[in-house]
Amino acid sequence: MSKGRLLSGMQPTGMLHLGNLEGALANWVKLQDEYEAFFFVANWHALTTMLDRTEEIKRYTRAVATDFLAAGLDPNKCAVFVQSDIKEHAELHLLLSMATPIGWLERVPTFKEKQEQLHLETVSYGLMGYPVLMSSDILIYKANAVPVGQDQLPHLELTREIGRRFNYIFGDIFPECEGLMTEYAAMPGLDGRKMSKSYNNAIYIADTAEETETKVRSMYTDPLKMRKTDPGHPAGCAVYNLLKTYGRADMHEDCEAGRIGCVECKKRLAAFLNDRLAPIRERRMELEQHPEKLDEILAAGAEKARKVARATMVEIRAAMHLD
Amino acid sequence: MSKGRLLSGMQPTGMLHLGNLEGALANWVKLQDEYEAFFFVANWHALTTMLDRTEEIKRYTRAVATDFLAAGLDPNKCAVFVQSDIKEHAELHLLLSMATPIGWLERVPTFKEKQEQLHLETVSYGLMGYPVLMSSDILIYKANAVPVGQDQLPHLELTREIGRRFNYIFGDIFPECEGLMTEYAAMPGLDGRKMSKSYNNAIYIADTAEETETKVRSMYTDPLKMRKTDPGHPAGCAVYNLLKTYGRADMHEDCEAGRIGCVECKKRLAAFLNDRLAPIRERRMELEQHPEKLDEILAAGAEKARKVARATMVEIRAAMHLD
Repeated sequence: MSKGRLLSGMQPTGMLHLGNLEGALANWVKLQDEYEAFFFVANWHALTTMLDRTEEIKRYTRAVATDFLAAGLDPNKCAVFVQSDIKEHAELHLLLSMATPIGWLERVPTFKEKQEQLHLETVSYGLMGYPVLMSSDILIYKANAVPVGQDQLPHLELTREIGRRFNYIFGDIFPECEGLMTEYAAMPGLDGRKMSKSYNNAIYIADTAEETETKVRSMYTDPLKMRKTDPGHPAGCAVYNLLKTYGRADMHEDCEAGRIGCVECKKRLAAFLNDRLAPIRERRMELEQHPEKLDEILAAGAEKARKVARATMVEIRAAMHLD
Repeated sequence: MSKGRLLSGMQPTGMLHLGNLEGALANWVKLQDEYEAFFFVANWHALTTMLDRTEEIKRYTRAVATDFLAAGLDPNKCAVFVQSDIKEHAELHLLLSMATPIGWLERVPTFKEKQEQLHLETVSYGLMGYPVLMSSDILIYKANAVPVGQDQLPHLELTREIGRRFNYIFGDIFPECEGLMTEYAAMPGLDGRKMSKSYNNAIYIADTAEETETKVRSMYTDPLKMRKTDPGHPAGCAVYNLLKTYGRADMHEDCEAGRIGCVECKKRLAAFLNDRLAPIRERRMELEQHPEKLDEILAAGAEKARKVARATMVEIRAAMHLD
C-alpha cells in the first residue's frame, strides 16, 4: 500500500555522480515502490545561479533526467518530469510569496552562505525566494514525504511554516510534509574530500568504464608505500574509504601488513565501480540512442504531475476566492 | 493608426471614485482609440496587502471591471481582463525574479514607505516583489506605453531596468516602455484633502445620485459665511476646489462678494457631478443587472490578452532555452 505522496528533485547544474547516485537516487528507486512518487528536474531553480548559462541548464536537464531513469526510476511506477513543464508551480509560487515574510527567507542559512559566496550585487530576488519556489514544488503535490539531504532541512522547515500559515488563513489545504533523511554516509571523492562537481573529484554516472579506470588510477597513492610490501595507512586513503562506503574494504589488515599494494587496491575499486555502474550505464546508453523515448517519458510524467498540480490549484484558487 | 501597445491596470482594493475616473479612466477611454490597449484588474497585486480579505478582493474585482466598462472602455476596442486569468503573468514573474537584484527592489521608495506603514514583521516576499510582478504585467504584452501616476514612476523605471537586463542576457525581446503621465490635477475629496478611499472622503462612481447629494451637502461650510450675504473664502473651500477641477468654478467673485451662498454652491456641485456621472451610472446599473454580460466581456478580454501573453512566453522560453 502507498504510504502517501512523495516528491523530490535535483537541479540540472551538472552531470550526476556517484554521490548523487548512492546518496539520493538509489534511495528514490526504493521509495518509488512505497509511495505515489514524483521526481523532477528543477530547471527553474537552476536559473538562480546559472541565468547566464541557460544552454547548459537545458543540456543538463536532459542528462539528469536520463540519469534518473538509468538509475532505476521506473516511469510506470512514478512520475519523472521537468519542473518548467508544470506552469502551476509558478502560479503557486506567486501566491505563496504573499504569505511568506521576508524575515523567514533572510534567516535561511543557505541564503546567507550564497550571499557571501556570490557577489552581493548579484543576489537576485529569485535566489532569495528559492525556498518559496521549493515550497510550491512540494505543496502543489500535497507531498507527505520529501527525501532530503541535511542541507535542505531548513528549506523543508520553511515549507512547513509556509504551508501552516497558508492553512491558517485559507483552511486545511496542505498536509505537513515529513523530511526523509537519507542515511547514506557522504561519498568521498577522488581526492578524499566529499565528492562534488565543484571539487572536480567526481566519478560520473555517464563516465565510461575506461574514464572510471583512469580516474581511479590517478587517485592518491600513499607516498610511504613505495613497494607493495611497505606498510600502508588505510585510514587516510581515499581509495580505501571509497571501498569502505560500499562495505568492500576488507583489505585493511593486508594493506597495513604490506600484503597488498596500491595498484591492486585501485584495480579492485575500479572493477567494483564499473560493475556497480554497468547496468546503469547500459540503460543510459540506450536512452541516449533514443532521445524520442526520453521525450515520451517526460511528457507522460508531466501529464501525471500536471493532473495533480491542477487539482490542487483549483482547490487553492477556490479557497482564495481567485476563481 | 495604432501608436503601439498600451497597458494599464488598477488594484481591486476598493470601489473606484471620481479621482480614479478623472485621473485615469477618462484618459484610458481616449487612449483606447490610439493604441492596441490592454486594461486589467490587478487582483494578484491586491494580495500584497489584502491576503486576509480575499472575499473582498473578489467582490472589488467585479466592481472595478464594471467601473472600467461603465466609464467607457469598449471591449470592441480594447481588452478588459482580470490579471489572475492570465497565468503567464505568474510564469514571467518567476523568470524575471531571477534577473532582478534584491538591491533594486529595496531601493524602490514605495517599498520603504509600505514597510514603515505596515508592521515590519508582516512585510511579505510578495510585497517586496510587487515591481517584479508589475514588470511581468507590462513586459508580457511588450507594452510601448503605460499610463501611470507620479507614484508609479519608480516602478516603471524598474520595469525598464529589468527589461534591459533581460534583453542584455537573452537578446532583444522587450521594447522600452514609455510612461504616459496623466496631466490631471489631483481630485480634491469631500474634506479638501486628496480624494482617497483611505480618507473616507470619496464620491464613488457606484454611488447613487442621492448619495452624491448627501455627501456634497455634508461638505465643509465656511463658518465665517453664516448668511449668503457674508463674504466667502473660495480658496480654502473644498466645494469650490472640486468645481474648479472641472473648470466650473465661475462663482469666485459672487462668493467673495456675498452674492451666492454655500447651499447654492453645493447644489451646483451635486448637480454637476450627477450629470457627469449619470451615463456612467446608467451603464453600470445595466452591467450589474446582467452579470453574465460582464463574465462574457472578461472572458473575451482574457482570450485577447492570453493570445499575446502566450506568444511572448513562447519567445522568452526559446531565448532562455526553457522549451
